[in-house]
Amino acid sequence: MRGLWLENERVRFRDDVPDPRPAPGEALVRVRLAGVCNTDLEMVKGYYPFTGVPGHEFVGDVERADGAPEWIGRRVVGEINAVCGACAACVAGRRSHCERRTVLGLIGRNGTFAERLALPIENLHAVPDEVPDEAAVFTEPLAAALRIGEQARLTRADRVVVIGDGKLGHLVALAWASEVGSLVVATRGGRARPVLEAQGIRCVAVSDLADGSADVVVECTGNPSGLEAARRLVRPGGAIVLKSTYRGRTEVDFAGIVVDEVTLIGSRCGPFVPALERLARGLVPVTAMVDARFPLEACADALERAAQPGALKVLLRP
Amino acid sequence: MRGLWLENERVRFRDDVPDPRPAPGEALVRVRLAGVCNTDLEMVKGYYPFTGVPGHEFVGDVERADGAPEWIGRRVVGEINAVCGACAACVAGRRSHCERRTVLGLIGRNGTFAERLALPIENLHAVPDEVPDEAAVFTEPLAAALRIGEQARLTRADRVVVIGDGKLGHLVALAWASEVGSLVVATRGGRARPVLEAQGIRCVAVSDLADGSADVVVECTGNPSGLEAARRLVRPGGAIVLKSTYRGRTEVDFAGIVVDEVTLIGSRCGPFVPALERLARGLVPVTAMVDARFPLEACADALERAAQPGALKVLLRP
Repeated sequence: MRGLWLENERVRFRDDVPDPRPAPGEALVRVRLAGVCNTDLEMVKGYYPFTGVPGHEFVGDVERADGAPEWIGRRVVGEINAVCGACAACVAGRRSHCERRTVLGLIGRNGTFAERLALPIENLHAVPDEVPDEAAVFTEPLAAALRIGEQARLTRADRVVVIGDGKLGHLVALAWASEVGSLVVATRGGRARPVLEAQGIRCVAVSDLADGSADVVVECTGNPSGLEAARRLVRPGGAIVLKSTYRGRTEVDFAGIVVDEVTLIGSRCGPFVPALERLARGLVPVTAMVDARFPLEACADALERAAQPGALKVLLRP
Repeated sequence: MRGLWLENERVRFRDDVPDPRPAPGEALVRVRLAGVCNTDLEMVKGYYPFTGVPGHEFVGDVERADGAPEWIGRRVVGEINAVCGACAACVAGRRSHCERRTVLGLIGRNGTFAERLALPIENLHAVPDEVPDEAAVFTEPLAAALRIGEQARLTRADRVVVIGDGKLGHLVALAWASEVGSLVVATRGGRARPVLEAQGIRCVAVSDLADGSADVVVECTGNPSGLEAARRLVRPGGAIVLKSTYRGRTEVDFAGIVVDEVTLIGSRCGPFVPALERLARGLVPVTAMVDARFPLEACADALERAAQPGALKVLLRP
């Protein structure tokens, strides 16, 4: 089939990518749209080793579903962790941390930047008719944005700062702006700013934010400078939610973390059901974030566009 | 008065330390016993600048109490943060993070390694008669050990590893061993081990603990290697409680923290009331931790003893 192939930190279009072979309990899904995430860009830079089809955000149609024909023809999104159901993490209900998991386009499983993909049927969620493809493709990153609330227990009293106005920071802001006491995005002033401001979300330069002025800081910059800024902005006793993954190690003064009793929360995948519900109710205006659409064949242009500072969501159409 | 004086990273005994002058609302306390904490040792190494009488652990007798004569003659321990009551942190109920606080023997206020000290009366807690001085002097570090439960929400299902068998790790183990699912101390095999084992607490070398085998790891080593070990031992989705303060910056792979959704919790001062309750009920056998007693004049010997690997609690008698 047609698809992108990542090997040795290089992505190229191929028309001979191996077709997915769904295992027992899995579905074969024809991809309608796939979204480019910063993690995909980091992978290309060698953030961790992966050979195969990258990409983990998608909306598509079920073509085959082993033992579950009722799924055939349905428009779906899918959770990206394919789990064993039997390890200690699975048994304890922490399935996204399954010790033997494969992860769509990330670990041991070909991803969404191709005509078709395979995923366990249990990972699928039907997309309500009122959610267009260009909104549904945001389900996975919106779920990741909602995960913050589960972990940091955000309330209407919290002053939240989102550092980074890229794809993820943008979604975090859209997801939480109306749910907390106040929310401001520390922007670099690129194209993201007018899109956010059109939604009534306050944007400022990070240098204009006062030390200790945030109860919760969400770090979405994708680079170590974000953590340093977060540390400055969070009040004593507050929390920093770490959403971005990047290669390399970062230096931190942990004595300060202890004295100020700051909590650092690593945050990854989130709940699909509330994400789809919010999209269905039109609560999160994600389609304004679509920056560009490319066919798979133009992957070089697509990835270059997605990597530009301030770029929002780049979509791939197989 | 007689006391120790820290200046330019050097501690010496002086018989002309200025007498404390209690401010309005403060008490004058004659120190019966003071305890040496690793933070005191770090301060001497220049962990942060302080000139004056070090020390923040004590039990003593109230000699004067501005406007509260009922306190005079009572045996007390005291919370170490003297707060303004008016800043945003105080108003929000986070008094230990008061923006204008002084801290006994640590920030802007002479400490406990002297004949007398001054503290706000509101910081004092009367010591029940059944708690001997050599137990009461542990109230402050025991409160710090109990703080972990407030932050990490420890339950009877949690597998807890305490890394570090020094003063604080020891207290954390004593405080929590009977409250959680399992608790093991990663020791270096010094004198602490038989003291812990005599209390039925399991001790092993850190290298004998399996990767990902802990729900919660409490880092009490006082050096950066502890964090590295904690990161290895904590399961995905688990928490690392950071209790030790040390000078310098530590390198961390934050992408791993994000992917594994690990939470890092800075933890400092804790609640005195439950600490005193546990001491009064004999639930935490702290007196077995007393390693040596010195008069103030022997401060050089006392600090040297306290700094030895595996040293437990060194007490100073003014």
